[in-house]
Amino acid sequence: MTIGFTLTDEQITLKNKARAFAAHHLAPLVEQVRHTTDPYQAALLVRPAHEAAVEAGLIKAMIPQIFGGTMTTGVDAAIATEELATVMPDFVASIGGVMLALTPVYFGGDPEQTARFLAPFLADEGAPQAVMALSEPAGTANFAAPPPAEGIQTTAVLDEDEWVITGEKQWSANLGGWDGTGPDLMVVVCRTPGGVSLIGVEHKHFTPENLIVLETLDMPGLRGHLTQRVQLAGVRVPKNNLIGQEGQGAQLTYAAFTASAAAVGLLATGTMRAAFDVAYRFATEQTRGGGVPIIQHRPVADVLSDAKGKIEAVRLLSWKALDAVTSGDPAGLELALHTKVYSSETAVDVINKLIQVVGVTAYNTDFPLIGHLLNALAYPVFEGGNIGVRRRQLKDILSTQGWDPLAASGLA
Amino acid sequence: MTIGFTLTDEQITLKNKARAFAAHHLAPLVEQVRHTTDPYQAALLVRPAHEAAVEAGLIKAMIPQIFGGTMTTGVDAAIATEELATVMPDFVASIGGVMLALTPVYFGGDPEQTARFLAPFLADEGAPQAVMALSEPAGTANFAAPPPAEGIQTTAVLDEDEWVITGEKQWSANLGGWDGTGPDLMVVVCRTPGGVSLIGVEHKHFTPENLIVLETLDMPGLRGHLTQRVQLAGVRVPKNNLIGQEGQGAQLTYAAFTASAAAVGLLATGTMRAAFDVAYRFATEQTRGGGVPIIQHRPVADVLSDAKGKIEAVRLLSWKALDAVTSGDPAGLELALHTKVYSSETAVDVINKLIQVVGVTAYNTDFPLIGHLLNALAYPVFEGGNIGVRRRQLKDILSTQGWDPLAASGLA
Amino acid sequence: MTIGFTLTDEQITLKNKARAFAAHHLAPLVEQVRHTTDPYQAALLVRPAHEAAVEAGLIKAMIPQIFGGTMTTGVDAAIATEELATVMPDFVASIGGVMLALTPVYFGGDPEQTARFLAPFLADEGAPQAVMALSEPAGTANFAAPPPAEGIQTTAVLDEDEWVITGEKQWSANLGGWDGTGPDLMVVVCRTPGGVSLIGVEHKHFTPENLIVLETLDMPGLRGHLTQRVQLAGVRVPKNNLIGQEGQGAQLTYAAFTASAAAVGLLATGTMRAAFDVAYRFATEQTRGGGVPIIQHRPVADVLSDAKGKIEAVRLLSWKALDAVTSGDPAGLELALHTKVYSSETAVDVINKLIQVVGVTAYNTDFPLIGHLLNALAYPVFEGGNIGVRRRQLKDILSTQGWDPLAASGLA
Amino acid sequence: MTIGFTLTDEQITLKNKARAFAAHHLAPLVEQVRHTTDPYQAALLVRPAHEAAVEAGLIKAMIPQIFGGTMTTGVDAAIATEELATVMPDFVASIGGVMLALTPVYFGGDPEQTARFLAPFLADEGAPQAVMALSEPAGTANFAAPPPAEGIQTTAVLDEDEWVITGEKQWSANLGGWDGTGPDLMVVVCRTPGGVSLIGVEHKHFTPENLIVLETLDMPGLRGHLTQRVQLAGVRVPKNNLIGQEGQGAQLTYAAFTASAAAVGLLATGTMRAAFDVAYRFATEQTRGGGVPIIQHRPVADVLSDAKGKIEAVRLLSWKALDAVTSGDPAGLELALHTKVYSSETAVDVINKLIQVVGVTAYNTDFPLIGHLLNALAYPVFEGGNIGVRRRQLKDILSTQGWDPLAASGLA
Repeated sequence: MTIGFTLTDEQITLKNKARAFAAHHLAPLVEQVRHTTDPYQAALLVRPAHEAAVEAGLIKAMIPQIFGGTMTTGVDAAIATEELATVMPDFVASIGGVMLALTPVYFGGDPEQTARFLAPFLADEGAPQAVMALSEPAGTANFAAPPPAEGIQTTAVLDEDEWVITGEKQWSANLGGWDGTGPDLMVVVCRTPGGVSLIGVEHKHFTPENLIVLETLDMPGLRGHLTQRVQLAGVRVPKNNLIGQEGQGAQLTYAAFTASAAAVGLLATGTMRAAFDVAYRFATEQTRGGGVPIIQHRPVADVLSDAKGKIEAVRLLSWKALDAVTSGDPAGLELALHTKVYSSETAVDVINKLIQVVGVTAYNTDFPLIGHLLNALAYPVFEGGNIGVRRRQLKDILSTQGWDPLAASGLA
Repeated sequence: MTIGFTLTDEQITLKNKARAFAAHHLAPLVEQVRHTTDPYQAALLVRPAHEAAVEAGLIKAMIPQIFGGTMTTGVDAAIATEELATVMPDFVASIGGVMLALTPVYFGGDPEQTARFLAPFLADEGAPQAVMALSEPAGTANFAAPPPAEGIQTTAVLDEDEWVITGEKQWSANLGGWDGTGPDLMVVVCRTPGGVSLIGVEHKHFTPENLIVLETLDMPGLRGHLTQRVQLAGVRVPKNNLIGQEGQGAQLTYAAFTASAAAVGLLATGTMRAAFDVAYRFATEQTRGGGVPIIQHRPVADVLSDAKGKIEAVRLLSWKALDAVTSGDPAGLELALHTKVYSSETAVDVINKLIQVVGVTAYNTDFPLIGHLLNALAYPVFEGGNIGVRRRQLKDILSTQGWDPLAASGLA
Repeated sequence: MTIGFTLTDEQITLKNKARAFAAHHLAPLVEQVRHTTDPYQAALLVRPAHEAAVEAGLIKAMIPQIFGGTMTTGVDAAIATEELATVMPDFVASIGGVMLALTPVYFGGDPEQTARFLAPFLADEGAPQAVMALSEPAGTANFAAPPPAEGIQTTAVLDEDEWVITGEKQWSANLGGWDGTGPDLMVVVCRTPGGVSLIGVEHKHFTPENLIVLETLDMPGLRGHLTQRVQLAGVRVPKNNLIGQEGQGAQLTYAAFTASAAAVGLLATGTMRAAFDVAYRFATEQTRGGGVPIIQHRPVADVLSDAKGKIEAVRLLSWKALDAVTSGDPAGLELALHTKVYSSETAVDVINKLIQVVGVTAYNTDFPLIGHLLNALAYPVFEGGNIGVRRRQLKDILSTQGWDPLAASGLA
Repeated sequence: MTIGFTLTDEQITLKNKARAFAAHHLAPLVEQVRHTTDPYQAALLVRPAHEAAVEAGLIKAMIPQIFGGTMTTGVDAAIATEELATVMPDFVASIGGVMLALTPVYFGGDPEQTARFLAPFLADEGAPQAVMALSEPAGTANFAAPPPAEGIQTTAVLDEDEWVITGEKQWSANLGGWDGTGPDLMVVVCRTPGGVSLIGVEHKHFTPENLIVLETLDMPGLRGHLTQRVQLAGVRVPKNNLIGQEGQGAQLTYAAFTASAAAVGLLATGTMRAAFDVAYRFATEQTRGGGVPIIQHRPVADVLSDAKGKIEAVRLLSWKALDAVTSGDPAGLELALHTKVYSSETAVDVINKLIQVVGVTAYNTDFPLIGHLLNALAYPVFEGGNIGVRRRQLKDILSTQGWDPLAASGLA
């Protein structure tokens, strides 16, 4: 699409639908989740919204048409995602986990696998979960590094016609499934004799003996997003559940984490937008004893307008990155990485400053601002930490012979 | 004391004593407080430490010798404070609340008042509380501003020989006292016919009818620090409990908040120091799958060394400010304000970056890092918000005719 | 245009044409200007490029079609502007001065005036100059403020059928014209009995007696951009050279400075792009004795990739702002202001960091990096200083009743 | 000295003497240097001040008493240095170059060498120059790195009883001496068969054939500081001019660059102080048409007060670092490195913001503000670039087994 910035009528409809969905299904959950101390119970509260999203075709709308979904463009996805993320980024993170796991299937799966693995997600009911099981308790920034690095610790060995998978996984959304019996699809990043590889595990392969939920993590934010540590104790799947080739796992994993990097930009946009609304309303309504709304004081107004300008910049970069990634633009990866790094650190910074606008009133769990910061704190460190993973990927791109600084802008 | 940076033997002993006190009395509380959901119950857990501090002479050591205490120098106070703040800044904030309330008594009280008001704090037992009751729910940044600003809303009117005080107060530590019957001393900032004034309320003046605890605030951090909203419903105190003159309240209040501004620098120093230790240990012990401790990666080491440099700078500025304030240096206020602003914003920034060093592992309530951020988030907004109060005070200083930029350094 | 990020074939052609123009006409000037100590002589060197731009239709391409120009869209203008700004932002600032002065004519001029004032700029030859004569030596941030503010100091009084204009003007490009006889059109912001007003002065009205060039400013950067201080000593123009109504001058002036605010984004983009190229080439080619190109060191790569991400964000925001302004989007002003503030401060920050990548080698006038910083230093302070003017405008927008934070994004 | 912040009477006298020297000998040079286009001629202007400094005992006051000088404490040196740096940091950089070169003599020289090499600097007349000839045109960040790194390129080989030195050196102050015949002492960092080594070259060893001044660098700032590129074409010196052992050169070089790192903090302090004074005076005197001095606007006052707070913090850190280094505190290196990194980047940042306070008026070479920025731009990149050298040194310290984060504060 040539350069432009105006929503089509269809996009306005899409935006309104997503906004209505968020208002109806997500907004009421936010306080419920906040008041639920147990992290597992908190995350479970979101299941009805997940079901509603499936029923409303929202999941399908994120699956490319070539694989049976109804996805249109990256910008469309961005518009819908922002609306959901503004109200409940945990929900977006949870759904995003599904998309993350399906991506290597698109890129590496053969037609039979693809049909089989995707089936639950193309149905119009239930609350199907897919998990890209990459992270491990000891850290995964160097998962594909050669020895002497330890790299990924989960292993899969062939026992006749079956892979036997052993290891521990953590952080990825929905590792244990809603009820501890496992998700509908788990794409396990593991070490096989041929290198780092991906193996698809379906719900039927899990048993109480081979999938053990060790812990539900008690996160400071994004609590409507089930995050566990699980043990894979000899999970057995057919040999042909290998996705792509042995040794192709790192490449497929990085591919999966490209769209997700761009999507973090929408989480950041939505969270900043929500935080801005809170601080802005406070500044226009409150005088703090001073006779005029505090937005009339320049230091307050300046924080707000600087925040607003950055929100606009982050949104545009996110739109462009998701557009590039979904349309197969070779600069998509670079743009997605810039989006991940810049949007996440900007969000933390912007919300920290907005807290100062509100002042000590914000230092109260009942005031809806620090909660946004607690969500945003995840953005620089999850989905590939900025320091350990994302800037290293950018270094690799920039130091590639022949890289053109203008390629990402289309001005090369 | 001429310029130097080496601790005396007495200061080393003091540091060791404070450190031992913190290890013995405070460290075990941190996890207990964290796991106590109810904010009132959480804050109550700290009472034994408060008693132990009294018994150990720690409270008395913060009261000037001229008023019966054993305080020596500002640097001594800084050294002890940092040790406590490193382990439990909420405790320091709570004790600091006592000091804040005693300061206007020092400056404005007559000898009889001073003796009477200070008595509970010079005893060597119990857990006496004093409160500087300034903040109100509608905000206090402009508490002394003339109409049309609303300013302070709590009023006191004379009824024969008694002041009758009516209003709502919030945020100050220990407003309700440990058990809701009020603190030992509450210095109420209120509006009397003669202007903004301070009135001392002693424990005996509170009744269940005139002091109503409306709410214990559920703060994101500093939870071992009892923070409530209370209603003063016609509290009656003798006429001679007025501290200083009618109309002198703003001046005495600002005086009280001078040492407290410098003290925030020690809270910031301690909290950064604790957060640094966590991130540093992680970086030296963890490889995250990469074969070498992550401190061997320059981006990790750079965050750590930049954080460390800032901690040193903040500590020195805090030492100097507290030294200047307690020794009566005319530049004390300016230095205290710089310390408040710079230390608080640096602490938030530094800890946010340290979180990135640890990565997603930090995004877990059980990992002891985000808790430090949650404490630090208070520093820019409490004790006089940086935007609404502290930088405005600095503007007043800098725009005073004859202000000398070199005065604060001693190089004028 | 609906949301998209791909250049059309026409835009690619436009980009290539502008790039070729810059390479041919501007690139050779950069070193010449740098080595010319006298600021007037330095700026004169650019005249042939100005003539070439006129001949190539570049000036006309910035004039709306409705007024006889060939301008197409804001994005087209942005694309061309970036190419010129990358090579020589001083040239863009100079040409931009022309556009700035024509804007109030578009908005406030009657048809006869418009035709008359625009004629020199629609011709395809010469080096016509127009100047928006706003700034004055004593500062202009509060030019339209009511007393007791001094506001604008230049005055115009009617003497029969003529305005007699008296005052001093500074900073605006080309105030004296190429040869000191004045520009083709000077739009003077002045105080008339009816308030702040705009009056158009044509070249024929200037005489050696009424236009006195007092000084050519010796600026640290943007030296190919003639910047003078001039005295208007009783310049007489016909009564009907008043543009718009008396008292409408502030409004028309702000309108003129809207597109220019967005355009600063392209100056910033181009300057950052040029600086990035220098630092990037250095990092990929130089080992500094270390055996590998320094881009292989993460701290170097990280500065480069962070810079790159910000360049992408600034460019997109600038494109969107210029698109909004030129298409009459009501959110155009807000977007233009965000662009001015954010792009200018980002440019200074980014280039300062790029200097650190190169290290001490950059601390040499012959190394082409600090020159870019010297250009960028103008961006936050010219075209309406960020502190004194632009953020105040943003405050006015944000504090307007009914302002919708989502309007600028199209998502309202 | 125990912790304190008050100047002694002797220090006040010292400060006043240094301030008077700066006012008398340096202040008049600033404008002369600025208006001298030729970099060699500009630097030569400073020679009389250098002579005056020698005569006034200022050089001797920087040489330890044990080696015949009159140096007292690090804090004394800091106080004097700041006064000079505030007026003319180029002069401090030039004198600092002398001290840098003498340091390895103190640490590595035998008594005979020390006496011989120091003699010119203990005399009370002339303008003696010493140079630590480390930097080379191809970069020196990795000067001591083992192959495959190239490391230092200058070599020295023994020819009978003489070292024959061949290479190119750059950046170090005074490489060619005032008149191109070489400095009184050049300590050459070079590669000998035994590793990286230091060799002292005295003025008598230079000839027009073996010392060729290739270029005087045209730096954007610090122009009163002679900076050249020279060729060493077979310089011959006696074998016993080797300082320390063969292979000990890297260690001695790092030792020399420790005190210099701390000293950069004073350059930064002085330059910020000078820039602050300019911006502060502007803000208190100028209304920019708005009726009140612009310091009355909070955004202006806030920039000024934030700048002021940082200046205080940087000064204290610099004092402490120089005190630690000169007193042999094991934490001296760590503190010096923090000072170098933090002070230099803070200075650039602070002055950039002060420019915004003044606005476009600052964008004029005749306004004395951007000149301070041009000086400050050197601080992060010279004396060991922050990215390439100084943070790497800090990484080495922090990753040393047993390093105690509290050691630098004295609180371990």
